[in-house]
Amino acid sequence: MKNKQIRFSIIIIVACSFCFPGLILTAQQRSASLISPEVKEDKSVIFRLYAPEAKKVTVRGTFQDPIANIEMARNDTGLFVATAGPLASDMYVYTFIVDGVRMLDPSNNVVVRDGSYIESRLLIPGDWAEKVIGVRDVPHGRVSAVWYPSPVLGMNRRMMVYTPPDYEKSNVRYPVLYLLHGAGGDEEAWISRGKANYIIDNLIADGKAVPMIIVITNGVASVPAAPGERPLQMAGVNVGSPMAMTSGKFEESLIKDVIPFIENNYRVQADPDHRAIAGLSMGGYQTQKITNTNPGKFMYIGVWSMGLYNMFGQYDKEEHIAQLKELKASNPILYYIGCGKTDFLFKGVTELRSLYDELGFKYTYRESEGGHSWNNWRLYLYEVAQMLFK
Amino acid sequence: MKNKQIRFSIIIIVACSFCFPGLILTAQQRSASLISPEVKEDKSVIFRLYAPEAKKVTVRGTFQDPIANIEMARNDTGLFVATAGPLASDMYVYTFIVDGVRMLDPSNNVVVRDGSYIESRLLIPGDWAEKVIGVRDVPHGRVSAVWYPSPVLGMNRRMMVYTPPDYEKSNVRYPVLYLLHGAGGDEEAWISRGKANYIIDNLIADGKAVPMIIVITNGVASVPAAPGERPLQMAGVNVGSPMAMTSGKFEESLIKDVIPFIENNYRVQADPDHRAIAGLSMGGYQTQKITNTNPGKFMYIGVWSMGLYNMFGQYDKEEHIAQLKELKASNPILYYIGCGKTDFLFKGVTELRSLYDELGFKYTYRESEGGHSWNNWRLYLYEVAQMLFK
Repeated sequence: MKNKQIRFSIIIIVACSFCFPGLILTAQQRSASLISPEVKEDKSVIFRLYAPEAKKVTVRGTFQDPIANIEMARNDTGLFVATAGPLASDMYVYTFIVDGVRMLDPSNNVVVRDGSYIESRLLIPGDWAEKVIGVRDVPHGRVSAVWYPSPVLGMNRRMMVYTPPDYEKSNVRYPVLYLLHGAGGDEEAWISRGKANYIIDNLIADGKAVPMIIVITNGVASVPAAPGERPLQMAGVNVGSPMAMTSGKFEESLIKDVIPFIENNYRVQADPDHRAIAGLSMGGYQTQKITNTNPGKFMYIGVWSMGLYNMFGQYDKEEHIAQLKELKASNPILYYIGCGKTDFLFKGVTELRSLYDELGFKYTYRESEGGHSWNNWRLYLYEVAQMLFK
Repeated sequence: MKNKQIRFSIIIIVACSFCFPGLILTAQQRSASLISPEVKEDKSVIFRLYAPEAKKVTVRGTFQDPIANIEMARNDTGLFVATAGPLASDMYVYTFIVDGVRMLDPSNNVVVRDGSYIESRLLIPGDWAEKVIGVRDVPHGRVSAVWYPSPVLGMNRRMMVYTPPDYEKSNVRYPVLYLLHGAGGDEEAWISRGKANYIIDNLIADGKAVPMIIVITNGVASVPAAPGERPLQMAGVNVGSPMAMTSGKFEESLIKDVIPFIENNYRVQADPDHRAIAGLSMGGYQTQKITNTNPGKFMYIGVWSMGLYNMFGQYDKEEHIAQLKELKASNPILYYIGCGKTDFLFKGVTELRSLYDELGFKYTYRESEGGHSWNNWRLYLYEVAQMLFK
């Protein structure tokens, strides 16, 4: 029987190499027999790329702070190798630069995307990568791509909705977290890079967070959806265009289109005590704009890696102070400001905190290691989710 | 007002370049200012890559049959350019090969994936790309990543479930199409490359298909989910391993785990007249195995780009004939065999048809242009979906 199985295997391997497109031997597949990235026992990492005709290969990624090119050493056969770490358990992203051109690691079949940043994934084992942000064998909620009408923006738009594991079987109404991405990103970023669904799955399984719905919108008012999910004629629209970022239309649409759609179409606790909003970078800007102009709408607020928005010409300090006084009077249960120590927006965050301190507006401040990165945004989601709706 | 807006834009562009990771100027972003691929009026395509340090750059993709490397011409500044086409309106995928290393087009922010094949997308405008497989402004169904228990395989597994536009608002029960991917692929392939959800959205909007649920499983019995959605320790499992393909366990699991889960958790018409199954390549093999051993379970069957499976050592002709007689007696409403004229499995498909002809087992045969490609599998889905449940 064993022999028969081995014979089958050989026949099938040969047959498959010829028969199935996923298995045809190509340059890409040849590289796939290399192991890259290889994580060693001590959590250091070896990157490998077979590129016999290349002159220079470097690797760069978010495992460095600041990010810089690491030159890879070439051996006699044309294999380029570099080592990094030991690294803390987490998810990082990286790319190779081959003779000046940036590319994915062809040996790594996991790619994550944040807008036009399409990069190879590196997972460093350990509690954080495996138990906090990783896929565990626990009940998983559903992640759905949902289209909804946006009369404010004059289009149908796409968002990602996470419903917790027991949603379909229960008759319970759930609280909702609205989660916003950064500039250049779209409604897929919090799933692809943010691991939001697995972070919440794990927290719920561990009894550390209450089951909740998470709504992840596309924060760019000029487009309906991520680039691959748009009509062809909209494929070229610049998702990071400045007017899209500061038009105020997305913020209006979240209040007038998104929240009513969710509250009419899902079993939701539709009151401020069960409504949270948080965003990173551009999404932190939008979170401020939305909550400053809608005091009392959200009792939980997270502003991550974004400070005072006086860098945008429209800033009006008197108006901002008047809004913050109203927001303060609405008495939010949590206002969580998160920022990395090396974040280039650190100064703006300090300015924002000073203003809040001046006004006696209370907030929770979380200063983490590192900079303007998904490593921090996943951390803030993990921490904030445990404080919500309790 | 106009001037003020322009001033804001300039301030914000400067601010953003420094402030938001999606907009920081990098080699990747510099390339993003190039247009590639550019589709001309006559449907020819220009590919461009800025690679001043590269010696040789080629482009290859599914817009060719057979696929071959097209050398790109270098100009004085280090810009490499190649032209292809005119091409028929459709979705294609391509990669560049820079000094021997395969890579995505850094100017193109739409990437599609089939297993470890991660490639840049090329859409050629026209009715097919825009009206049949493209994202139109019509009601969209939801695509959800759903985890379900698989006692047969001893794990929780992930599948993609498409529910039609009116599913949440109606009380109607819907028919179900089970849709299987090829070797090396996973539960995301029919969404990423197959555009199954948009094909059905468009057919429903045009009144050409009845609203239906589509269930897209992971056909590799040894893994729970696509590589990026697995526990870390399973990341390295070879999704295309031959034993995974021919163990018969996936087939058993579809019958015992998947179908009961769907019929217990969705508003489904749970009878053979409202149950369809179709698959391509490895999925066409599995579709045969499932329907041959479960006559009468599915009244609609699609076997695409897969023929007689005598290439797999286990083949037993007498058993096959006995099964086909029972399947014939169950009187399926549709048995659709699709194959491209240049498919390398064409001979096997001819052998399968000969056997069916011998037995008087009726089928619909669709011979299309091209080979073993998603262009054909999307075409077959488009055609078959119009024949289902009517």
